[in-house]
Amino acid sequence: MPFQLQSSHITDSFWSHYRELVRTEMIPYQWDVLNDNADIVIEKERNDDNIPSEKSHAIENFKIAAGLKEGHHYGWVFQDSDVYKWLEAVAYSLSIHPDAQLQELADGVIDLIGLAQEQDGYINTYFSIEEPERRFKKLAESHELYCAGHFIEAAIAYYEATGNEKARTIACRLADCIDAHFGKEAGKIQGYDGHEEIELALTKLYTLTGEQRYLDLSLYFLYERGTDPTFFARQRAEDKGTTAVIEGMSHRQLTYYQAHQPVLEQETAEGHAVRLVYLCAGMADAAYLANDSKMLEACRRLWSNIVSKRMYITGGIGSTVDGEAFTTDYDLPNDTMYCETCASIGLIFFAFNMLKNEAKSQYADVLERALYNTAIGGMALDGKHFFYVNPLEVRPDSSLHDPGKSHVKVTRPAWFGCACCPPNLARLLTSLHQYVYTIHPQQRAVYTNLYVTGTAELKLDDQTVQLEQTSELPWEGNVAFQVHTDQPIDFTLALRIPYWSGEPVLTVNGESVSLDIKDGFVSLNRTWQKGDQLKLTLPMEIRQYSAHPLVRSDWGKLAIGRGPLIFCAEQEDNGANLHLIRVYSNQQATYRFDPELLGGVGTIEWQVERQQVGAEWEQVLYSSVAEPTYAPHTLKLIPYYSWANRTPGEMQVWLNKA
Amino acid sequence: MPFQLQSSHITDSFWSHYRELVRTEMIPYQWDVLNDNADIVIEKERNDDNIPSEKSHAIENFKIAAGLKEGHHYGWVFQDSDVYKWLEAVAYSLSIHPDAQLQELADGVIDLIGLAQEQDGYINTYFSIEEPERRFKKLAESHELYCAGHFIEAAIAYYEATGNEKARTIACRLADCIDAHFGKEAGKIQGYDGHEEIELALTKLYTLTGEQRYLDLSLYFLYERGTDPTFFARQRAEDKGTTAVIEGMSHRQLTYYQAHQPVLEQETAEGHAVRLVYLCAGMADAAYLANDSKMLEACRRLWSNIVSKRMYITGGIGSTVDGEAFTTDYDLPNDTMYCETCASIGLIFFAFNMLKNEAKSQYADVLERALYNTAIGGMALDGKHFFYVNPLEVRPDSSLHDPGKSHVKVTRPAWFGCACCPPNLARLLTSLHQYVYTIHPQQRAVYTNLYVTGTAELKLDDQTVQLEQTSELPWEGNVAFQVHTDQPIDFTLALRIPYWSGEPVLTVNGESVSLDIKDGFVSLNRTWQKGDQLKLTLPMEIRQYSAHPLVRSDWGKLAIGRGPLIFCAEQEDNGANLHLIRVYSNQQATYRFDPELLGGVGTIEWQVERQQVGAEWEQVLYSSVAEPTYAPHTLKLIPYYSWANRTPGEMQVWLNKA
Repeated sequence: MPFQLQSSHITDSFWSHYRELVRTEMIPYQWDVLNDNADIVIEKERNDDNIPSEKSHAIENFKIAAGLKEGHHYGWVFQDSDVYKWLEAVAYSLSIHPDAQLQELADGVIDLIGLAQEQDGYINTYFSIEEPERRFKKLAESHELYCAGHFIEAAIAYYEATGNEKARTIACRLADCIDAHFGKEAGKIQGYDGHEEIELALTKLYTLTGEQRYLDLSLYFLYERGTDPTFFARQRAEDKGTTAVIEGMSHRQLTYYQAHQPVLEQETAEGHAVRLVYLCAGMADAAYLANDSKMLEACRRLWSNIVSKRMYITGGIGSTVDGEAFTTDYDLPNDTMYCETCASIGLIFFAFNMLKNEAKSQYADVLERALYNTAIGGMALDGKHFFYVNPLEVRPDSSLHDPGKSHVKVTRPAWFGCACCPPNLARLLTSLHQYVYTIHPQQRAVYTNLYVTGTAELKLDDQTVQLEQTSELPWEGNVAFQVHTDQPIDFTLALRIPYWSGEPVLTVNGESVSLDIKDGFVSLNRTWQKGDQLKLTLPMEIRQYSAHPLVRSDWGKLAIGRGPLIFCAEQEDNGANLHLIRVYSNQQATYRFDPELLGGVGTIEWQVERQQVGAEWEQVLYSSVAEPTYAPHTLKLIPYYSWANRTPGEMQVWLNKA
Repeated sequence: MPFQLQSSHITDSFWSHYRELVRTEMIPYQWDVLNDNADIVIEKERNDDNIPSEKSHAIENFKIAAGLKEGHHYGWVFQDSDVYKWLEAVAYSLSIHPDAQLQELADGVIDLIGLAQEQDGYINTYFSIEEPERRFKKLAESHELYCAGHFIEAAIAYYEATGNEKARTIACRLADCIDAHFGKEAGKIQGYDGHEEIELALTKLYTLTGEQRYLDLSLYFLYERGTDPTFFARQRAEDKGTTAVIEGMSHRQLTYYQAHQPVLEQETAEGHAVRLVYLCAGMADAAYLANDSKMLEACRRLWSNIVSKRMYITGGIGSTVDGEAFTTDYDLPNDTMYCETCASIGLIFFAFNMLKNEAKSQYADVLERALYNTAIGGMALDGKHFFYVNPLEVRPDSSLHDPGKSHVKVTRPAWFGCACCPPNLARLLTSLHQYVYTIHPQQRAVYTNLYVTGTAELKLDDQTVQLEQTSELPWEGNVAFQVHTDQPIDFTLALRIPYWSGEPVLTVNGESVSLDIKDGFVSLNRTWQKGDQLKLTLPMEIRQYSAHPLVRSDWGKLAIGRGPLIFCAEQEDNGANLHLIRVYSNQQATYRFDPELLGGVGTIEWQVERQQVGAEWEQVLYSSVAEPTYAPHTLKLIPYYSWANRTPGEMQVWLNKA
């Protein structure tokens, strides 16, 4: 269909800031980490002796696997993926901001990976160096296809950014190797990786190359999953290795790997949250590419379970640290949850692939929610410190003394031994331009998912149309579009009306247009002229959100949002013991943008009350006579994403209601 | 001083019921368990492969250690203590209810333990059978002195109940063996057991025998503790054994064992809750016996920290499952806590030993709180099922799906692999008569700690006085005393005025007496005549308790108590989703005793509101428009101790306030 999104560029100041941080801070920093350069402090994400941490060794592993050096593999069995995610971020960054020196560095990494690739296309430094005989024999924990998927994603991005053919060739050889070993056919392994990722990478490779076998292989993995509940157990039993590839995994139930049922039968989001959303992202892309309506229906079921029963208001997912996993419907504790940064990034992938299937604003709403809150909250304003775990309520004393909260950090550490989150953020931020629009060629429609200042080039028939978007998000809901076309052209421009907007107002060339909202989008189907101007006003009101009454942790509480941002209270602005604050929902709050605070953020002030801890509580723990007393308090809220950038202290999203 | 409590008997129907259950159900049942008789199901207290569970093997271990059988030790390294606690409960039970057959059985166990005792007095079946060379070399985890303490306690009780001299002799030889190995002197071990218990046992042995060395040894262990922070680490380093005695202990910090500081410097209750309260019970008894005011001051500090900052309203302690431990001040989560039955029993020991030091009602108030709520709540009404963990809020779905709550059971299992709680309860209940009164000879005073129907014989100078108490607790606060004395006699009878009482009324021989309450006791110092009658009315009102405002988990909530009992809501009476109920504190609640319910319990009914989950929440997780709607609901509450005796379901102590 001659309707394509040729390119998309972001010039938005809010996002450019983050993308610049990735380019100037994260990419060089991570390069130092990957190469074990001096002065790099790597922290463990948890206190667990099974977790390696002292160094990355990731590039060294490749050199050893390539035969350039002697030595042993060090680090996680999935250490290679750190290199791949770095490479993917570099690829997007180069597409935004060419940099010959960086490209040369990355070309060298491609060459190194090529050298580490085995004759048959296999790449994995752990198994190549240490245990070649255990290849594909411990798939529950080996992460071999997970790493392969990350390389394929990186190679596609790098090929697209730089035209490096070698990257593409290595990726195809790797995919072909996997294709040769897995499948229904006799002699092949009827199985799949414990950590999904290859599925969504293969659909991307199919999209790039048009090779049907890659889509078929992705579909094979998706449909094979969970059909034989004995697969991992049989591999474990047959495995001749004397050591676990990762310690402490053998007790995990099949739900942890989403391998408890065929995916079409899975009704609820179970297990390790990152795995589940990576699986779903793969399912949604495969459903789109293969036009598989049953698969799409399964995606809709899982989506609905997540977003209507198992997602935090910040777009975080994963209610428990144990297995970094989902728990059960409406179980959303604010202070013991996991809400891994990577899981919200995976949710963004899932949402975006659903948008390809069907233009419903709920997907973009969730994408935006996860992006503006948990995803960028995973990163400090300096671009050098990162959260793995994104709590909605923190008390430093509890993190220190309650072992059930020891995973909840009060400040962002510099790096992690298991470095999945920072590079995942880097590749998301540098590729953000890909998420702004979705094309639906059959409708000759371009859907605007995100309001971000920038430009997009559309290829319509043989014409090129430029869409110039300006947006004041996330601080104000003023959006404008200008259409640049040489000749008048028919197509549909659809604009999302976000859930957070007040009564929207739309004008085309100054004349107001009545809004016919369908599935959360307003569609303007017209003959566009050169210079057509479109203005969309999405009033940003301070909104008080309640959670579903069955969410016990949020009962009697409310959270404040404005636009896509969820707000929170910090100790720095409000003193300790934030739970003593109670708000009256009929009291007016005021919004103000403070250019001096936290690099410039919107703030909300609210006249509320704060319970006083009187002398009657001296040495008293329970009382049948003490009456609570309150004093006026001016509550100050900041955007959730900007928390933990000042003095470490308490933070709270859900506020007690009076 | 010629002022003694000669004996104490309980005839109270509430408590006799429990004591009969111990005699008729628990003691025979546990005997079957200890002997691995058929049809005994033993459950694990947690899902943990390190926990043995299939059988007890405890008597078999003694037979092997005694040389009567061949074989290996099986079970926990502290498995012997199960036998000792059974023996102690049997001793008390025999003192209440003589039973020749049971006594013969127990005499046989004493004989068997005597055979398992080594030449030098040492007893521990694990080390005798498996690793004699590691004796006293792994004290952080070996539980050798812990087990010894339990034997000494059992032997004292058994000697006192039956006059069995052999029990006493074995105990003294065991204590002498320990005395020979531990102490300041060169060549002795300067150390202590990881699990306190020997300290409180040695003070009891001193009290029985008058042998100063037992008190000195107890004081030695107490004062040695925490002085050398390297002790456990050095033992670990020197230990030649190839295996851990208990797996998974080596990461525990010194606070876990209360070995981080000398006990006189410990300001807060830290670590494993049972250990801490056993330590404190030993400290309090030693302070009393040695007239050690510094030790008493340390006891007061730790007591105050527990009861004013770290204790649940049910008298439960231990805020986290990880280490079964205290966490930090005011950190009292209701649904993830531990609140081990044994810890509340230890708190009772501590409270009682503090009452020996100083007659302050706060100790008896806490003793009563722990007894009537968490302790007996640890046992099902059938006397055959037991809780280890005593939550204040339970939701079955969360226990099933949230790993952070998997230790919180919804029903009481039949028995545990680590069988500490049921036999601990058995010995507490059968010895309850010992806790009713405390004598302060110098004041010629007898203090009434608990209101329980029964009789006590006091020896005053050379006269015997019988105190006959009748009590309607826990259902009504009507108490009466009759003094039986042949001749008029001067002494003080002090009566506790509990924290839960309304305006108390006291009459002596029908004439009302003005109440001069000091430290929570009313003291009647008079010349008592034969047949003097005393009536104390302690009005029981339904009380609404608030927690200290810094207890986040209870903020905006209240708990209901009446008399010593804390009440709770169960799903069976109120439907699921108990958190949707909100109460108006100005609304009147009504109390009614229901003889048909749960073996006869007081119930409380309250007109409250219940939030409705309307259609606006269909597929919606967060809403800025939904307004909560409420419908009237009749809330029915039952005593906390009686929960989980019907259909498994939700339970909640702290109720949301409107």
